[in-house]
Amino acid sequence: MAGALDGIKIVDLTAIISGPMATMMLADQGADVIKVEPPAGDNTRTMGTQRNGLSGIFAGANRNKRSLCIDLKSEDGVAQVLRLVRTADVFIQNFRPGAAERMGLGESVVRAENPDIIYVSIAGFGFEGPYSQRKVYDPLIQAACGMASVQGQSANIGGDSELVRGIVCDKVTALNAAQAITAALFARERGAGGQHVQLNMLDAAIAFQWPDVMWNHSLQGEGITATPDLASMFRISPTSDGSVVMVAGSDAEFEGVCHALNRPDILADPENATMLQRMMHMRELNDWQDGELLKMTSDEACALLDKHQVPCAKVNRPDQLANDPQVRINGSIFLEEHPFGGAILGAAPPTHFSQTPSTVRKPAPALGGHNREVLGEAGTTPKEIDRLVEAGVLRQQP
Amino acid sequence: MAGALDGIKIVDLTAIISGPMATMMLADQGADVIKVEPPAGDNTRTMGTQRNGLSGIFAGANRNKRSLCIDLKSEDGVAQVLRLVRTADVFIQNFRPGAAERMGLGESVVRAENPDIIYVSIAGFGFEGPYSQRKVYDPLIQAACGMASVQGQSANIGGDSELVRGIVCDKVTALNAAQAITAALFARERGAGGQHVQLNMLDAAIAFQWPDVMWNHSLQGEGITATPDLASMFRISPTSDGSVVMVAGSDAEFEGVCHALNRPDILADPENATMLQRMMHMRELNDWQDGELLKMTSDEACALLDKHQVPCAKVNRPDQLANDPQVRINGSIFLEEHPFGGAILGAAPPTHFSQTPSTVRKPAPALGGHNREVLGEAGTTPKEIDRLVEAGVLRQQP
Repeated sequence: MAGALDGIKIVDLTAIISGPMATMMLADQGADVIKVEPPAGDNTRTMGTQRNGLSGIFAGANRNKRSLCIDLKSEDGVAQVLRLVRTADVFIQNFRPGAAERMGLGESVVRAENPDIIYVSIAGFGFEGPYSQRKVYDPLIQAACGMASVQGQSANIGGDSELVRGIVCDKVTALNAAQAITAALFARERGAGGQHVQLNMLDAAIAFQWPDVMWNHSLQGEGITATPDLASMFRISPTSDGSVVMVAGSDAEFEGVCHALNRPDILADPENATMLQRMMHMRELNDWQDGELLKMTSDEACALLDKHQVPCAKVNRPDQLANDPQVRINGSIFLEEHPFGGAILGAAPPTHFSQTPSTVRKPAPALGGHNREVLGEAGTTPKEIDRLVEAGVLRQQP
Repeated sequence: MAGALDGIKIVDLTAIISGPMATMMLADQGADVIKVEPPAGDNTRTMGTQRNGLSGIFAGANRNKRSLCIDLKSEDGVAQVLRLVRTADVFIQNFRPGAAERMGLGESVVRAENPDIIYVSIAGFGFEGPYSQRKVYDPLIQAACGMASVQGQSANIGGDSELVRGIVCDKVTALNAAQAITAALFARERGAGGQHVQLNMLDAAIAFQWPDVMWNHSLQGEGITATPDLASMFRISPTSDGSVVMVAGSDAEFEGVCHALNRPDILADPENATMLQRMMHMRELNDWQDGELLKMTSDEACALLDKHQVPCAKVNRPDQLANDPQVRINGSIFLEEHPFGGAILGAAPPTHFSQTPSTVRKPAPALGGHNREVLGEAGTTPKEIDRLVEAGVLRQQP
């Protein structure tokens, strides 16, 4: 059975994560993604932990793609990409606003080659406005969208702000982009034609933060019943060998905690009868629970709480994740032997489609590993390809 | 112009965020989402800050939907939902695994009414396995997927783990679900027929964490060149009235910092010539930069750094966000007068489609506010609706 996006061809000029993670999702679902890279390759090829020219971050965002390494500062290079566009369904780029136009790959030029194409632009702060020409790194968007300020509200933090560890805004933008591209393809199938789809990281991050994190900043004016932030309801409890998260919100769950920790007296205390009463002396109850959990390992604590139907989970360290029993049953993580990078773990496509299964068909590509194949399919002759190689327009990972 | 998903009808039994945020995205893009709620309503209606029966979190995840409030413990209620299913394109639920089947709304029953339907199930930890029957709250998934452990690696944290403030795993699952539904609709348009689409929060969170956060845990075996985590490259700098994030990775950006802070001597120092050299005494350089930034306001710091093309952003507090000049130009946040909740801010749909614009057409609905309309469209007579109201099967927000 083919994937949901089988038959879709994507010419992908994006780099780092906001674009590549989006196109990998679509590639997992069957799309043919041609990753167009400059001579130096996507920056993530040389970022972070690696072996034999394969970095973890590149492998994690570029499987199932083919790589065309081509110099877009040359007219020949641009002409080749425009030739690819003719048989493509999607063109996507995340250069700084205006750069694609200056390269000769703006929407109007691309659309002239293929009127039905979905042309996708991803920006950082926006396409116009005071910050639109700033170079963007994820933590700048965390700062601008309010995320860093909110993270700083943790009781454990000294300053007024803190970053979330992970390029969350890049990745949230990628998920939005993948959905938007799929929606534009659906609409085209129903007759909407080609179109320009534009996203920026700041707006994607604000929309992501909104419903829960901003619940004290949406209603305006008088007569509002304010509550603490949602995040303040949750906490971590240390154990003898790590920590767990336990949530005992309802009466039944509190009862479960009292039974699990063998304190019927606390359960019977009329001062603990309702959630409101328990909230009045929450610190005391938390201290008692934490004291008990500290005597157990995380696995012991979760087994006990589970038995009494108290929602809980062990805090997995990254190195423990692949061996978690639920992760193993889910098949969330798989081991692959990469052609030049060697043994590497990957995260499986998280969605299961009963009729159009997602698949991992190809390893993350070598830089320029599909130059001949991709250009040949688009009608460039072997002789012409030889010329482009000699002229240095086409490059390849040694 | 119609939205990308115009003409699509979604019967939505989901609650809280992982489902509702997904269906709101699709509703923004034109889908007709019928939110099917139990007599007490989606829990988020009574969660957190609110006014006149409208909570911020409910408003933020349920605009553009219609509400059908119906008791699914009654056979009549289930029969009505199955009638809706006949003209729907998507059915989505996020009950605990097995619950939909017990209610008489499992995939086979729904598919018997409509063979072409996309039936979507969202679970927490998974559909089978040791944690699959646990009740799920977002921080449990943050714990299980490694996110809480990674967040605890911040230098500012005392313990071994920390939660991200925001129900990130719920929302990442929602974004994946919205994309998956759209992909299944696209595939159906091309002949794949109806199918079952399954997601769980744990796998969605692991896939989300993977490329960047797990870069030290993907490559296995020998010969690996390890680097610090990506997150350790970024930091926050306090200013006289808040804080900023500044990233000066490249040589050019470091040059910009030296010019901005008026220290040509630091730039000229041969010890600072390369990035590797600068990393050797990074603490000293950071201390100098922080000392200077502390003398300015955040706006002054960003204006100065901007002038010298150093990537930077002010840390916006949530209450500052709507007035940020870039946010205003983007139109990221809009003010609405909700019929019973009053003045409320919302986050705009973050994607702009040139031919199929997303729109905000309807406010978040009153509980059961569309009972008659929705059931009438499905062919239930007014007399039968009256009977269901009298029998207490249909309810409505007073």
